[in-house]
Amino acid sequence: MSKFLTEKIQKLTPYVPGEQPKERKYIKLNTNESPFPPSDKAIKKASEEAKKLMLYPDPDCNELTALVAKTCNVDKENVILSNGSDEVLNFAFMAYCDEKTKAVFADITYGFYKVFASLNGIPYKEIPLKADFSLDLEALSNEDGTLFIANPNAPTGLFVPVSVIEEIVAKNPTRIVVIDEAYVDFGGESCIPLTKKYDNILVVQTFSKSRSMAGARLGFAVGNKELIADLMRIKYSTNPYNVNRMTAAAGVGAMEDSGYFENNCKKIIENREYTHKELEKLGFVHTNSMTNFVFVKSDKIDGAQLYKKLKDKGILVRHFDKEEIKEYNRITVGSAQEMQALVNAVKEILGE
Amino acid sequence: MSKFLTEKIQKLTPYVPGEQPKERKYIKLNTNESPFPPSDKAIKKASEEAKKLMLYPDPDCNELTALVAKTCNVDKENVILSNGSDEVLNFAFMAYCDEKTKAVFADITYGFYKVFASLNGIPYKEIPLKADFSLDLEALSNEDGTLFIANPNAPTGLFVPVSVIEEIVAKNPTRIVVIDEAYVDFGGESCIPLTKKYDNILVVQTFSKSRSMAGARLGFAVGNKELIADLMRIKYSTNPYNVNRMTAAAGVGAMEDSGYFENNCKKIIENREYTHKELEKLGFVHTNSMTNFVFVKSDKIDGAQLYKKLKDKGILVRHFDKEEIKEYNRITVGSAQEMQALVNAVKEILGE
Repeated sequence: MSKFLTEKIQKLTPYVPGEQPKERKYIKLNTNESPFPPSDKAIKKASEEAKKLMLYPDPDCNELTALVAKTCNVDKENVILSNGSDEVLNFAFMAYCDEKTKAVFADITYGFYKVFASLNGIPYKEIPLKADFSLDLEALSNEDGTLFIANPNAPTGLFVPVSVIEEIVAKNPTRIVVIDEAYVDFGGESCIPLTKKYDNILVVQTFSKSRSMAGARLGFAVGNKELIADLMRIKYSTNPYNVNRMTAAAGVGAMEDSGYFENNCKKIIENREYTHKELEKLGFVHTNSMTNFVFVKSDKIDGAQLYKKLKDKGILVRHFDKEEIKEYNRITVGSAQEMQALVNAVKEILGE
Repeated sequence: MSKFLTEKIQKLTPYVPGEQPKERKYIKLNTNESPFPPSDKAIKKASEEAKKLMLYPDPDCNELTALVAKTCNVDKENVILSNGSDEVLNFAFMAYCDEKTKAVFADITYGFYKVFASLNGIPYKEIPLKADFSLDLEALSNEDGTLFIANPNAPTGLFVPVSVIEEIVAKNPTRIVVIDEAYVDFGGESCIPLTKKYDNILVVQTFSKSRSMAGARLGFAVGNKELIADLMRIKYSTNPYNVNRMTAAAGVGAMEDSGYFENNCKKIIENREYTHKELEKLGFVHTNSMTNFVFVKSDKIDGAQLYKKLKDKGILVRHFDKEEIKEYNRITVGSAQEMQALVNAVKEILGE
């Protein structure tokens, strides 16, 4: 840090992304990436677009916005695209929280919420998960402020039904509820239809996981058109060209290739259930994950130790030090072959 | 705007990018884009990279950072890449300005400085340009706070020699001086060497103009390693994967193709001097632009009117309403053919 840095930024604790070691080749099951390449259409469109890079992108991303809107069964005015869903989540903190309106979220959830709150000088309250890792919806709902709910939640993988979210949104008409659906395509159900009925819900999704585009940085939010206008205001005050030409083009290709997308989601769900079943046989317990990762522990081996032994065997998974979940590991669901390799490695580690 | 929006964001006046009309095909000389396509190497590398989009980018962009550092003759620790130079400029406002340390910049300069200050709740002071549009360096220097200097400046095109910037930096060791060199490759000289000698200067550049990559969103800052660590802190607290895979790959290709880059800059300078000369013949005056645009006016026609008549003829230029410069138009330097078309259109408009 330099001596010139403002106090506020000095105090920040930045987010720590999953490790990306370069010293050897790993089976990467630590950052919830897709094992499948992006759609051929996405690759083709991005490559074509690379020839036009001398021109600024369309700041309104009209083509992709229209396509996302159509896919979500909403109007264009209900959609904003962003440089990864992180960007639009940050916009939501800026738009709907301040010294007077705090941010409220679970104590075990996407780690970036806390960072966004600090970054923007926003007070926040973390509500502990219940003992079974489910969200304490009553406590979340009783706390004043803007609600941020990852649904399904990470790293627990648990999904809250839309009807339950609707109850919270309906009962809290004077506050914003942000639903972060990064993992919704793996068996959950989207809250997007609620955005037509309520003016206080914002739904955030990403192309990173289910559409195999983590490397392209593309996310979006859906909401009432006034909410989207709020976020557009921030976009035009930070980075009007936040989504580059190639990413927007790849997004169009990915959206058009819905068959490929659906098939990939189906395969991930199959591989997840395979992993659940095989690890169960080895004595592991797991949450009822509706995502592209499993969250597992075993009495036979400490969480940190399993992480380390898997790493030694060339398999990277994600371990969190936090007391309540330190016995667990979050393991991304990869290809069938990768999950077999994982199961075999665990067997070897346990000596079974 | 929704009723939920925070007061701070309500009060913002967002940036207005140059118009991108879609109703007809224009000769676009309004947003300082390059008339030349990106380097073939950039296109090829970006296209190859599109196949790997399922994986997150390297958050440290090691390959491109090393290459930029080498090109700038600094170390990797002295470079941070960003999603367009706008992003890293915003980071600099966040890092080096707050309620106690205001931002100081010219009243006529890149319009986003004011927006970034407002966005971050930072007080700012605008220092009027002198009558000849040159920066009032004494007044800028006498005002406490963090200095933001576009060099060359926009939309005036005027360049301040490095030796003069060095004097300011040396005389103000307790404050940060940010030099925004978006247009430096068209005849100016970079202040990057000063970053080795002083710990209070940050230099920002972009791939948008001289490297034909406005559509890719890639910028960078060079400075003392403590300053870069400050900005990295903010990057890891907002969007660790701010630069996507394809853009980073295109950046590598563009950096490797230095011959193409140099040749394009040379052509732009030639076309600029041609435009200056031809418009002079038609009675225009111009600033001594060292950028990829000319800044011109004529007693024979009002600035707004020329803008409008050129638009009617299918040529887009940029006009600013601000009192001191409303007689002028900022015209991007395009290809030789485009500048001929511009000169011919002006001749027709003036009836000569």
